[in-house]
Amino acid sequence: MVRLVALFSQPDDPLAFDAHYRDVHAPMVRRYPKLRDLRITKAGGLGDRPAPFYLMAEMTFDSRPDLDEALASDAGRESGRDLRTFAQAGVALFVADDDAADG
Amino acid sequence: MVRLVALFSQPDDPLAFDAHYRDVHAPMVRRYPKLRDLRITKAGGLGDRPAPFYLMAEMTFDSRPDLDEALASDAGRESGRDLRTFAQAGVALFVADDDAADG
Repeated sequence: MVRLVALFSQPDDPLAFDAHYRDVHAPMVRRYPKLRDLRITKAGGLGDRPAPFYLMAEMTFDSRPDLDEALASDAGRESGRDLRTFAQAGVALFVADDDAADG
Repeated sequence: MVRLVALFSQPDDPLAFDAHYRDVHAPMVRRYPKLRDLRITKAGGLGDRPAPFYLMAEMTFDSRPDLDEALASDAGRESGRDLRTFAQAGVALFVADDDAADG
């Protein structure tokens, strides 16, 4: 399994962000071909340190080729364009290869 | 379930980082009381964009109180001190509350 991990920075307007994510962006992601799971989690801080991110989205696929195919699909390109409209505060993207995970 | 997520920035010397993580730091984390799971994953980039992090460590607990107890334990304090010795490139920490996850 591999995960595409998206870490969204704190938005200026969290309520608007949440509504857009839920009503517009997540439905696009759920149309990714071969998506196995979408997990969306708010990030909390530790002690008096605020969290460095607002929200984490984890999109799970069986393999890296499936992930790449999803991003190249219509839904993938649409969601990429959409990211630029509502994630102005920033988003960090990476791929976690859980098959190569150690521990 | 809650996860303590640690995202390590790219180290100057990845081989030394990996050896220290594997041989010194991970054994401390595995001594956390009530730790349910430790998952360590290398981060890969997308297309021609390099990953914004080098390694992700996910430490799973049954609850936020268990997580806080682990960090306050001897092993937790020891691992916190150790972080400062080998994660000079930076580490971003946050708590993912999977019980509150949406999606």
